[in-house]
Amino acid sequence: MGSKTLTIVGLGLIGGCYAKTLREEFDTIYGIDLDDLALAYAKRENVINEGYKEAKIPISKSDIVVICLYPDLLLKFIEENKENFRPGTIITDAIGIKGDTIEKVLDMLPKGVDFVGAHPMAGREVQGVWNSDKKIFRGANFIITPHPKNNEESLNIVEEMAVKMGFKSVTRVTPKEHDEIIAFTSQLTHAIAVSLVNSDEKNFDTNVFIGDSYRDLTRIAMINEDLWDNLFMGNKKNLIKKIEKFEKSLNILKDALKKGDSKTLKNEFIRSTKRRKEIH
Amino acid sequence: MGSKTLTIVGLGLIGGCYAKTLREEFDTIYGIDLDDLALAYAKRENVINEGYKEAKIPISKSDIVVICLYPDLLLKFIEENKENFRPGTIITDAIGIKGDTIEKVLDMLPKGVDFVGAHPMAGREVQGVWNSDKKIFRGANFIITPHPKNNEESLNIVEEMAVKMGFKSVTRVTPKEHDEIIAFTSQLTHAIAVSLVNSDEKNFDTNVFIGDSYRDLTRIAMINEDLWDNLFMGNKKNLIKKIEKFEKSLNILKDALKKGDSKTLKNEFIRSTKRRKEIH
Repeated sequence: MGSKTLTIVGLGLIGGCYAKTLREEFDTIYGIDLDDLALAYAKRENVINEGYKEAKIPISKSDIVVICLYPDLLLKFIEENKENFRPGTIITDAIGIKGDTIEKVLDMLPKGVDFVGAHPMAGREVQGVWNSDKKIFRGANFIITPHPKNNEESLNIVEEMAVKMGFKSVTRVTPKEHDEIIAFTSQLTHAIAVSLVNSDEKNFDTNVFIGDSYRDLTRIAMINEDLWDNLFMGNKKNLIKKIEKFEKSLNILKDALKKGDSKTLKNEFIRSTKRRKEIH
Repeated sequence: MGSKTLTIVGLGLIGGCYAKTLREEFDTIYGIDLDDLALAYAKRENVINEGYKEAKIPISKSDIVVICLYPDLLLKFIEENKENFRPGTIITDAIGIKGDTIEKVLDMLPKGVDFVGAHPMAGREVQGVWNSDKKIFRGANFIITPHPKNNEESLNIVEEMAVKMGFKSVTRVTPKEHDEIIAFTSQLTHAIAVSLVNSDEKNFDTNVFIGDSYRDLTRIAMINEDLWDNLFMGNKKNLIKKIEKFEKSLNILKDALKKGDSKTLKNEFIRSTKRRKEIH
């Protein structure tokens, strides 16, 4: 791709996946993190060439910078470092909500530095660069949220990177559409899993009474509270709407149960079966 | 176990798993089903020794009979066949709700024939004996619902069978407790998955915007509508209670979002993470 130096800002689980899947594509990969242990591990395992706690040096040498920070830290990072990027640098991110961030970032950045919003739809219920793995990205979905001010070439480079990282599908939508969709496919699912686990009355040892269904539905109830508070609060209007839509759907089943209305119940089951079959 | 002949009534996915996991434990396994293709497949693959569409002959020769029918067919089957079991036969079932069935069945059966309620907590989103597999039972939970009229020996034989079939845990609870617990761990999870899929507004191609979380949470939305109508309606009081408890839990998140109350949100996330870590 012609780019030689990559910097990952925030070397956690996802940052580590970027570094590991792009190891062969860049001559040099730098990692920025506040955690000495993360940097030491990544350097020792040759995930990165060098680790830094300060951003200035690595980002001033980079062709591509990937920001894998918590949502509320992105703007601060750009604000503090906007003068340090060299012209031609493409910045991208891995943040699960977009809001009006991209607009704001582009307004802050000097001419010649582009920012392409992105969201790798992959994760694990564990944290840390130690748990990063090429397999996490393989076959997953990648979303790019173009802004009218973006260069088409920057978008294409980030798209090319996604393919190299192993994603099976790259889709472009506006930041607004992204946040609306993600409220449903990601945040609502986490809200449901958390609520399901928390509604356990624990009169019995749940462990010996569960099947795969409970295990599958609740795996994502193990959640990083600071990150997900950020994601939920940063997209709360959309998420509240999706929760309410889901509640209506669940109410159809509850009402059918109360009325002994098997016809409605079966119709809902047939509908969900048909729709779920369309999902790979 | 001293028993030599086993009959499976209802040779679908679960019936097939019983036959396959118990193949070495019995000299003879009979299968009863209305579907010629299921019987032909099972005989050809040596899952059973012989298939029957009528119950009388096989069950009169059996030491153990496992009933893998839809919930609403169990009592009818016992009523029609109660004279055909020979003394000493142990009947058990694989039905996901218990209600007052066991009491009724025991009242119908002649002296010397015992009925042990059981529930193998395992399944797949596919159907048919063709999809049965020893792996489905391996490491799963098995529940026995003893009745005061049961012989202790019958309970022990069914428990021993469960271990031979590969279940990792066998737990005894009353039918009433079973139904209350299962409303939460099994039926509520299915209600949630169905409702989640059905609340998709489908303004976008969901497929390219999902991660593992959505896939995991909705896998069980592919559901056999007749069976699950039976299970839901047969346990509706408990299920309605569990749905309402879950709704309250989800409302805590929704209210926290509306109020911008990060403290509550994080507390809920911490609580679910802690609880989910206790589940293997």
